[in-house]
Amino acid sequence: MKKIGFVGLGTMGAPMASHLLKADYEIIVYNRTKEKADELIAKGAVFANSPADVARQSEVVFTMLTADSAVEQVVLGANGILEGANEGLIVVDSSTISPKTSKKLAAELAKKGVEMLDAPVTGSEPQAIEGVLTFMVGGKSEVYEKCAPLFEIMGKASFHMGENGAGSYMKLANNTLAAINLLSLSESLIMATKSGIDPELFVKVVSGGGARSGMVDNKTGKIISRDFRPHFATALMHKDLTLATDLAAELKLPVPVLSLVRQMLQMAISNGFGNEDMCSVIKCYEEWAEIEVTSK
Amino acid sequence: MKKIGFVGLGTMGAPMASHLLKADYEIIVYNRTKEKADELIAKGAVFANSPADVARQSEVVFTMLTADSAVEQVVLGANGILEGANEGLIVVDSSTISPKTSKKLAAELAKKGVEMLDAPVTGSEPQAIEGVLTFMVGGKSEVYEKCAPLFEIMGKASFHMGENGAGSYMKLANNTLAAINLLSLSESLIMATKSGIDPELFVKVVSGGGARSGMVDNKTGKIISRDFRPHFATALMHKDLTLATDLAAELKLPVPVLSLVRQMLQMAISNGFGNEDMCSVIKCYEEWAEIEVTSK
Repeated sequence: MKKIGFVGLGTMGAPMASHLLKADYEIIVYNRTKEKADELIAKGAVFANSPADVARQSEVVFTMLTADSAVEQVVLGANGILEGANEGLIVVDSSTISPKTSKKLAAELAKKGVEMLDAPVTGSEPQAIEGVLTFMVGGKSEVYEKCAPLFEIMGKASFHMGENGAGSYMKLANNTLAAINLLSLSESLIMATKSGIDPELFVKVVSGGGARSGMVDNKTGKIISRDFRPHFATALMHKDLTLATDLAAELKLPVPVLSLVRQMLQMAISNGFGNEDMCSVIKCYEEWAEIEVTSK
Repeated sequence: MKKIGFVGLGTMGAPMASHLLKADYEIIVYNRTKEKADELIAKGAVFANSPADVARQSEVVFTMLTADSAVEQVVLGANGILEGANEGLIVVDSSTISPKTSKKLAAELAKKGVEMLDAPVTGSEPQAIEGVLTFMVGGKSEVYEKCAPLFEIMGKASFHMGENGAGSYMKLANNTLAAINLLSLSESLIMATKSGIDPELFVKVVSGGGARSGMVDNKTGKIISRDFRPHFATALMHKDLTLATDLAAELKLPVPVLSLVRQMLQMAISNGFGNEDMCSVIKCYEEWAEIEVTSK
């Protein structure tokens, strides 16, 4: 496979596509806002006029979009991927969407002989740029094997989780874990800081023990240096937690902590931090505590 | 300093004292249940008849007990450490107690020329046995410096956090972080498992990304292998979260997630898991989900 399509060239999609381009694949791209494709076009990518047009020229089409409705539109809508798909095309959706939608899309595509993988990623902008994402993949294992080399170029690892939808299940569980760990950091860090402990020292202590976490590693530095530029925006994480909550409801599973954490992110959004990094939720606590978490 | 006292020889205290013994210190011990001292006595420790008697023979006395009331009793009560203390004695309390109590004890001891450090630890039984605890220390820095070699023998690191009470503040923040991360693991793991994902694969995926945590590393294996023997008992963590909640109230700090997580541990205790490892909280979720988190 040499001809790879890419629909959705945002924060994640653009660097992902550029890794494939560097690896000498022929890249056909589409994005609603064309300017976002300019850099890729300058490097040799071909711009197509619609998702259907991307599909027509590709053997595999990746989609990287922000919500269920956008993916449905791009795949099944007018001028969508299905319209232009040749038999045997593989659609790989790396968006974070509900497993229900992933399964529905796979079923619709299958009717026309088009294969689908749901392949969301862990990692945000910096990992996409460095090419160290992790892909969680749902779909037939032979289709996964075919696409594994592409995942390897854009990421450091890929895992075949199970049938269609399993990648999306795993992603929602992963983000549930990440988001609760973020609130865990927020409450413990504000408590320590308000008690007079230097946040830098807090990090040193917790990093050596059972309380360590990726959120401590990735977010405390941003908080201390007051850098709330989004690696992963609060609004996006809130959206993922909404999907996770819906999934839990489908599974008839009570998830009290997840539900509360989702509300805390809603609080951050209502305070105006929706487009900032999700670690900006700390600012809600800072307001209550009447202190800032900065270096002593 | 060569003569070190040790009061409280439970799961944590006994292995801690044995490291000092191995390092050729003279160890004077006391424990309410004398049998718990037998192994140490066989290795050369001297048993004293009371905490006062330990203090009389020691230059530094460690206490490792389970609650504020026990520490107060042992330090200030009849036949307590203060009663037997020579001027210049250093009392190091490694129990997890409220910072308020730590500060009160330090003030009482200071009146008689006795120094005090609050020096709780991160790590549970396995880390105590291996000698890789981390000490979070509050008190005068010159007193901390004097005791640092002892911390080094029992642990892998020690940090001077600030004045008396600062070690306890840090400990409560640390355990807040650990406990919320445990519930984060519980909810995400049950969601993934109920969705059909192999728990072992779940661990592999999350460990490579921002959702990684010490709780994932330390507890998922125990859960999957149905090993709920306590490294850190649910009831003890619940006690620590009660102290943390009290601290937050003193600081006038809302901590909604901590409060809920404390309730979830109460639920586990009410279900009969108080003396099991804190990861037994997963069993509450398993009952709701009607599945067990075991290997596929």
